[in-house]
Amino acid sequence: MARVYNFSAGPSMLPEAVLLRAREELPDWHATGMSIMEMSHRGKDFVGVAEKSEADLRELLAIPVNYKVLFLQGGATGQFAAVPMNLLRGKSKVCYVNTGLWSEKAISEAERYCSVAIAASSKESGFATIPNRADWRIDPDAAYLHYTANETIGGVEFQDIPDSAGLPLVCDMSSNILSRPLDISRFGLIYAGAQKNMGPSGIVVVIVREDLIGQARTATPSIFDYKKQADGGSMLNTPPTYNWYLLGLVLEWLKEQGGLAAVEARNVRKAEKLYAAIDGSRLYSNPIEPGCRSRMNVPFRLAKTDLEKTFLAEAKAAGLVNLEGHRSVGGFRASIYNAMPEEGVDTLIAFMREFERKHG
Amino acid sequence: MARVYNFSAGPSMLPEAVLLRAREELPDWHATGMSIMEMSHRGKDFVGVAEKSEADLRELLAIPVNYKVLFLQGGATGQFAAVPMNLLRGKSKVCYVNTGLWSEKAISEAERYCSVAIAASSKESGFATIPNRADWRIDPDAAYLHYTANETIGGVEFQDIPDSAGLPLVCDMSSNILSRPLDISRFGLIYAGAQKNMGPSGIVVVIVREDLIGQARTATPSIFDYKKQADGGSMLNTPPTYNWYLLGLVLEWLKEQGGLAAVEARNVRKAEKLYAAIDGSRLYSNPIEPGCRSRMNVPFRLAKTDLEKTFLAEAKAAGLVNLEGHRSVGGFRASIYNAMPEEGVDTLIAFMREFERKHG
Repeated sequence: MARVYNFSAGPSMLPEAVLLRAREELPDWHATGMSIMEMSHRGKDFVGVAEKSEADLRELLAIPVNYKVLFLQGGATGQFAAVPMNLLRGKSKVCYVNTGLWSEKAISEAERYCSVAIAASSKESGFATIPNRADWRIDPDAAYLHYTANETIGGVEFQDIPDSAGLPLVCDMSSNILSRPLDISRFGLIYAGAQKNMGPSGIVVVIVREDLIGQARTATPSIFDYKKQADGGSMLNTPPTYNWYLLGLVLEWLKEQGGLAAVEARNVRKAEKLYAAIDGSRLYSNPIEPGCRSRMNVPFRLAKTDLEKTFLAEAKAAGLVNLEGHRSVGGFRASIYNAMPEEGVDTLIAFMREFERKHG
Repeated sequence: MARVYNFSAGPSMLPEAVLLRAREELPDWHATGMSIMEMSHRGKDFVGVAEKSEADLRELLAIPVNYKVLFLQGGATGQFAAVPMNLLRGKSKVCYVNTGLWSEKAISEAERYCSVAIAASSKESGFATIPNRADWRIDPDAAYLHYTANETIGGVEFQDIPDSAGLPLVCDMSSNILSRPLDISRFGLIYAGAQKNMGPSGIVVVIVREDLIGQARTATPSIFDYKKQADGGSMLNTPPTYNWYLLGLVLEWLKEQGGLAAVEARNVRKAEKLYAAIDGSRLYSNPIEPGCRSRMNVPFRLAKTDLEKTFLAEAKAAGLVNLEGHRSVGGFRASIYNAMPEEGVDTLIAFMREFERKHG
């Protein structure tokens, strides 16, 4: 079948060029007579792939030399536990900002290891905004301040990096990493599951300032101990080699796109035209405060809810798939990560206009 | 390049038929217009893949209905921590058998959570045997008895299932699962990283008797809590979908081979002829007691160590690669998991004979 535009929130669309290259290299990687996934992670071929991916990530994000980059397993949900396990450093309290379901999951897991102070929450607004910075209460005794850069379900995204009042700033960047340039030096730690903007699921990237590691609590599983993994080059045990390889292909593709400034410009265009189409219609609406709308996940509703099934069916027939909203909120959601071509957004907008003309 | 015979200990050779099918399905899975790795893990397509893989594994291993099957991240090394975290059930002691480096790693990680009694150890013999069963001291107060079914570095394998004196029997089966039929009902828990006999790295299978779960210690990361993962169908968080899919293709291939009885018969033939060639030569030797030699990993040495580099170079030129022994022991090692064709072993034997004729 012809390739569709896949608006899934994650795992999500990958660049077609990456898939085609993976296909080409699948049975015989670089004339070795075997697939990369059949190779020892300690052999020079795979080590070369791993090192290049780290170098490319460092280049794309301009990661300072005093930060370690780790490629781990267990997803962001694993990091919800690993972060407090590693970063408490003798303290008993951490501080979290609550901007949606993913914040809440991170908070709930952290509460199993320490006391969690909520610096701010937008729950009362139905997570339609980001709490006013002036009202944040950052506990100076907390080990770190944690926030979720982009909430995939609500469609809320921080447009700048918040001030952490001197605490190490920790960020779940799973759904918007690599979508724009970033000042890494503002952070103590960033973690991001790959399956939105970086590759397939099964690998999670941790970028951590090196002075923060080495004090994991005693009962931390070794695979979650940042210091042990940093010392072992993320190969304390066998890493997910094929996932790492695919992540590396995505990084090469991002560099070919012109790097993150070019990627951001395209993401801004994609998001702005989609929100403009929604705001300019009478059928569609998005509930999020304009200043914190996500460039990555655009939820929307129909004024006529009886048209929902028809909308999905006609969209699918037009090659626009996985537009259902998250099961917890309903409605629709277009996830338009880096790998979604601009033509995919244009096609969606044209479809939405035509649908409104026919049914509106 | 022509496909080589890859004797890597893991990640290791996969069935060529699996790689070719993965290649065929890579850009467009079953006419959906996208790759399986781009699909939501909660969509019906991927859920179908996941359910079929569990059903196939249950069929191949005749897993009783009172066992849960989990597909997790973090490898066997993650399970070294997860097993005591989940299975202590209020006890403070566990019991381990030490038959090599992988046993020692499991013991070392378990010691971070509880007291570890060593039921038996073959360390004094240089791990060239399995301790005499009559001499095992199984502590009746231990929460479980753990052993490593196959030691990839030493090349030692249990040929039957040990008696656990009434304790739940826990086994690291990473390197020989699915290589022979198995009586699952003898076990409390089996875990196995996929990257030897089941698929690519990045996914680990846990088979656990359901009465043993639900009492994880408080600080267990949620992704390692067997009960939470069982309740969530191994989708507490986004699973490694592509790894899971590839694992499913390997299971389908195993069924096409005639199931585990047929697979075992071939594995016995492969191992017996390779050991016979070693034992029948004057150049090659294997130090392991014949009754506990591994069918999966065959370490060997040359009587003339000055020929080692020549051996590796000539083997590589003949399309026989990754025959180096583990860095901790040196020498050579032929890993001949399920996916190694019998012709691969025949070719290796013919090469070894010719090498001995020329250089011996």
